Amino acid sequence: MTKQVIKKETEQKKHKKQRRKEVVEEEERKKKMPLGEKQGWEKSESRYCGVETEFDDDMPGVLTSNLSHGFFDFVVAPLMNPTYRPSLVEKEASGSSPVLPFASSDLVLCLSQWSSHVIEWASHLSLQACLLPSPKSTSCANYARCVNQILQGLPNMQLWLRIPLVKTDEDAMDENSRKIVDSWEVWNSFRLLREHHSQLSIALDIMGTLPSITSLGRWFGEPVRAAMISTNCFLTNARGYSCLSKSHQNLLTAFLNHSVQVVISGKPLHSVPKTGSGLAFNGSNVNNQSVPSSFSHPSHPLKTYLDYIGFLFQKMDPLPEQELLKLGFRDCLRSPLQYQRAIHEALLDRVPEENTSVTTILMVVEAGRGPLVRASLQAAEETGRKIKVYAVEKNPNAVVTLHSLVKLEGWEDIVTIISCDMRHWNAPEEADILVSEMLGTIGDNELSPECLDGAQRFLKRDGISIPSSYTSFIQPVTASKLYNDVKSHNDVAHFEAAYTVELHNIARLAPPQPLFTFNHLDYSAKKSNERYKKLCFKMPSDAGSALVHGYVEALVLLYKDVHLGTEPSTATPNMFSWFAIFLPLRTPVCTQPGSDLEANFWRCCSSSKVQRGLAALTSKYKLLHDCSCLMQVWYEWCVTSPCASAIHNSNGRSYWIGPIRYLQL
Amino acid sequence: MTKQVIKKETEQKKHKKQRRKEVVEEEERKKKMPLGEKQGWEKSESRYCGVETEFDDDMPGVLTSNLSHGFFDFVVAPLMNPTYRPSLVEKEASGSSPVLPFASSDLVLCLSQWSSHVIEWASHLSLQACLLPSPKSTSCANYARCVNQILQGLPNMQLWLRIPLVKTDEDAMDENSRKIVDSWEVWNSFRLLREHHSQLSIALDIMGTLPSITSLGRWFGEPVRAAMISTNCFLTNARGYSCLSKSHQNLLTAFLNHSVQVVISGKPLHSVPKTGSGLAFNGSNVNNQSVPSSFSHPSHPLKTYLDYIGFLFQKMDPLPEQELLKLGFRDCLRSPLQYQRAIHEALLDRVPEENTSVTTILMVVEAGRGPLVRASLQAAEETGRKIKVYAVEKNPNAVVTLHSLVKLEGWEDIVTIISCDMRHWNAPEEADILVSEMLGTIGDNELSPECLDGAQRFLKRDGISIPSSYTSFIQPVTASKLYNDVKSHNDVAHFEAAYTVELHNIARLAPPQPLFTFNHLDYSAKKSNERYKKLCFKMPSDAGSALVHGYVEALVLLYKDVHLGTEPSTATPNMFSWFAIFLPLRTPVCTQPGSDLEANFWRCCSSSKVQRGLAALTSKYKLLHDCSCLMQVWYEWCVTSPCASAIHNSNGRSYWIGPIRYLQL
Repeated sequence: MTKQVIKKETEQKKHKKQRRKEVVEEEERKKKMPLGEKQGWEKSESRYCGVETEFDDDMPGVLTSNLSHGFFDFVVAPLMNPTYRPSLVEKEASGSSPVLPFASSDLVLCLSQWSSHVIEWASHLSLQACLLPSPKSTSCANYARCVNQILQGLPNMQLWLRIPLVKTDEDAMDENSRKIVDSWEVWNSFRLLREHHSQLSIALDIMGTLPSITSLGRWFGEPVRAAMISTNCFLTNARGYSCLSKSHQNLLTAFLNHSVQVVISGKPLHSVPKTGSGLAFNGSNVNNQSVPSSFSHPSHPLKTYLDYIGFLFQKMDPLPEQELLKLGFRDCLRSPLQYQRAIHEALLDRVPEENTSVTTILMVVEAGRGPLVRASLQAAEETGRKIKVYAVEKNPNAVVTLHSLVKLEGWEDIVTIISCDMRHWNAPEEADILVSEMLGTIGDNELSPECLDGAQRFLKRDGISIPSSYTSFIQPVTASKLYNDVKSHNDVAHFEAAYTVELHNIARLAPPQPLFTFNHLDYSAKKSNERYKKLCFKMPSDAGSALVHGYVEALVLLYKDVHLGTEPSTATPNMFSWFAIFLPLRTPVCTQPGSDLEANFWRCCSSSKVQRGLAALTSKYKLLHDCSCLMQVWYEWCVTSPCASAIHNSNGRSYWIGPIRYLQL
Repeated sequence: MTKQVIKKETEQKKHKKQRRKEVVEEEERKKKMPLGEKQGWEKSESRYCGVETEFDDDMPGVLTSNLSHGFFDFVVAPLMNPTYRPSLVEKEASGSSPVLPFASSDLVLCLSQWSSHVIEWASHLSLQACLLPSPKSTSCANYARCVNQILQGLPNMQLWLRIPLVKTDEDAMDENSRKIVDSWEVWNSFRLLREHHSQLSIALDIMGTLPSITSLGRWFGEPVRAAMISTNCFLTNARGYSCLSKSHQNLLTAFLNHSVQVVISGKPLHSVPKTGSGLAFNGSNVNNQSVPSSFSHPSHPLKTYLDYIGFLFQKMDPLPEQELLKLGFRDCLRSPLQYQRAIHEALLDRVPEENTSVTTILMVVEAGRGPLVRASLQAAEETGRKIKVYAVEKNPNAVVTLHSLVKLEGWEDIVTIISCDMRHWNAPEEADILVSEMLGTIGDNELSPECLDGAQRFLKRDGISIPSSYTSFIQPVTASKLYNDVKSHNDVAHFEAAYTVELHNIARLAPPQPLFTFNHLDYSAKKSNERYKKLCFKMPSDAGSALVHGYVEALVLLYKDVHLGTEPSTATPNMFSWFAIFLPLRTPVCTQPGSDLEANFWRCCSSSKVQRGLAALTSKYKLLHDCSCLMQVWYEWCVTSPCASAIHNSNGRSYWIGPIRYLQL
């Protein structure tokens, strides 16, 4: 059924203001705005919760009863009275004043004019989005063609395709003849027919029974805009109140974390908590989230469900590291303890036990507020080695903090602070040990080996660089949004570039595998940074089919066997602590559950590309330029199974990095 | 092993001239030029036969012994001495005068510089083609990347990838563990990695055992340039002479028919026929093809095999209808007998038994030399109906023939000849029956319904049009060449157009199925010519995987149940008697044996596209314009299984026909 989504935009803001006046205590306020701004979150992190209603001629009444008093944020309502069914005869007879058609399931049967009229009506109403009925199967070409026509005349409005979150058809009686219906495949068919149109997204209907976690993972790479949850998905706890199963809680939390809006649908089936009484939320210590008595509006019959969603939002984990990184908390991500271990090892390697009187020259570049300076001094103390530290930092504010730290700790004789961009610094002497995090800062994984090579200019011939090596890890992903962004350029070149990206809206389809390793322990000007590797990703057998839009690659930094990431315990540590890059595939590859995805990657280096007419150097690559002259680096990649793809970026034709030219979304 | 192909271009011509002087008798000449020009064939239809030789420093000697005296047309020889194996050290040491490397199997191991050097050498020699070793498996990304690099600096030379014609790996001992190796899949992987590069084609190594006929069919849609046949594929007949199995004969004949060059390789293993003695070719009546004694050159050791290939070429079927059509023999394709049957039926329908004195007005448009005029008169005689015939013909030469025919037969009172283009003819009266072949002439299948509608202007309100209806048939094909032609335009629009094409170099992957049927028996201005159909093609289970580049569609014309094609006996008559169109797929679809290919087609009509700024009318569409005003017609199509494709030509965005704009290759 085609529905409308009406957000209570300005009205909502007004209400918030009003509430702000009324609510004084912060704890109280949170309870009133379960999905509003949470302390410490960015503005953009607000979450919305809507409600699905039945058809009602009195739309203003519907809006008031659902949106006022801080209840829901928006309403999903049928555009037409469900009892109204126009015939073609009527429509023709009506001539210039057409009777508005009802968007019944006939829409699916390709009466394209009807669907056009319905959506045109929705567009005329300036609705934010229009909910479309679910396609019946993967063979939905005719329906997709109707939507094609609709989208042509629809510059702004979003179309939300309603998709039931099912994987197996439970209706079929016998095990053998049971036809597997995977609603993700239905969506996938529809979006392929529609060529990943950016105005087409998903409203997922969450059912009482959920598919496996692995198969659910696929949705996080898709443009899911709304999670529709019916009241009959809610369980009843001992006190008769609504609650959700643990797996439903996890799913909704994950959706909230991905900025998916929640829509409550259905009739109230659970007790409404009495004013002042405790709400018994499922297994938590927030038993006292009562509605304050100062609010005496008539309660909404679905308020218990809305409150529950608010409760889930409240107990969400704090921001993951990656988000912190994005928000500028890079310092939080440092792992001074791991660096301390690495420097400890390096000092032992560098200065033998019988000669501890030697002073080791140690440089910390991008020293920030000093965590690695402290780690260096602690490592020196642990090992009984003498050190002299140069702390290089370009941010003048951080330099102030550094000076205070050095004064406070009494390190003046050991630490020299250099307020300078490391790329322009001419060091007074060469270092024994160089500690840096520049790989994480520069974020261009493809250039990392050359960056490490470049660090040599600060080092003695036999000096030690921390990190001394790194391994890049790669994994296949579904990434509708990234793919759409790349596709929007309408050329091959953009499909053959690597992108530094935020990796939030992706579905990781198989565990990451090590791709290239570069070891800088034994520095040699002659060694090659060219690489080739073929990887075979085993697609999980319980996740259903999948669509591979490309790969993400991230780095793991090492000093010998010491991981410098924040999760050193795992074999493939939290690769996404660092910036990652996205390598798209021109034609997304469909994979079957349990099948192999064979992927090939080349890291190519050449100095011949300079002839292509490059001139200026961006400051970003100054360091590289100093050390590697006019070397260019690029990746090539392709798929050889299940079906061969083109070799992407053949001979670096579309993108390369080096002195110049780097495509960024 | 990388080989060179040297064609004896000018030298060959010289020899031919010389031989022409020597040979007088036509029968004799044929025997001397087994693969030369055949009587009645176009120049371009000549076939070539080459020979594969071992490495020899004395290249001029190799050329003389193989190409002179009318033996072979070209030589395939190793570029390097197979004993020579350069090491990387040698190569580096050689500096500015690099030692030429030998193209060993190391090529496959991605020593890309080596392969570059080999091909560069071949290019320097201005060879027509360079034979590349076969990839070892479908996982040949690295090899493909080498070839990528080679092709970048290679503007003209063809690269022939040597592919063994095998489907099952017979080496594996046990039935279960036997790994299926389908060399077509190896080729398919390689060409997908290379994005259908037009300079990359195939040299097929024909083995002693052939795969199934269905699986062989796939190669006829591929760019096969050479069929390499080893002497040990030849059997020995009772007299000790060489011959081929029936299936090998059929395959080679089919390749010759597709302009594939044959290359004989290996050592002579069969008796060389003595001069003057009969050659016992396998099961045929050409037992006396001796080499005339007037030619006393030293015989070539492989001449018996060359002669056998010549023999196969000689006994090839005459040109298929389609070829005749292309060569302008349209008249030959008429089926007057079928038309006579149709006119017979129409006269009986039109004039009841009790009223045979009525004169029926019959028009034959595009009357040509009169076969359908004769058919009309014979049908009138058969049925005892009176007729008056207008024979409309625009070709003045044909009109002369028509006048002679009418005079000769004494039809002056019955037949009126109109020397005029039917599109500009204003008929003096309306016809009861209109007989035309214009669908075949115009060749734009998409417009056929409107053409038939247009014929109404010559007809009485209740008049009969022959053909009265038609059905279009469609089938999926592999069509490398067509696909490449479309791809060469580098835009989406060309992938969303329909092409009128010659359908020689295609592999038909599944039997054709009826698509759209248009019936014009009951003419009504109100009826719609819009159609939608979903077809499911079952891919044969014994043909191996396949790549679908698109579909071909052709018409079958009918009057009621009378087929008007040349093969009325079959249910899906020789659909390719008429021009066919090709509908490409932007991304070719890989299909598994036995799987379903679900295809969707729409025929769309609209008058709104006129706003797109169309102005002039081509004369071709004048008729249409007269009758259908500014109607536009286009197809849309997509795949929904095994994996959904984009909907092609959505809303006619890339191509439509009607007043204007028609893409043609």
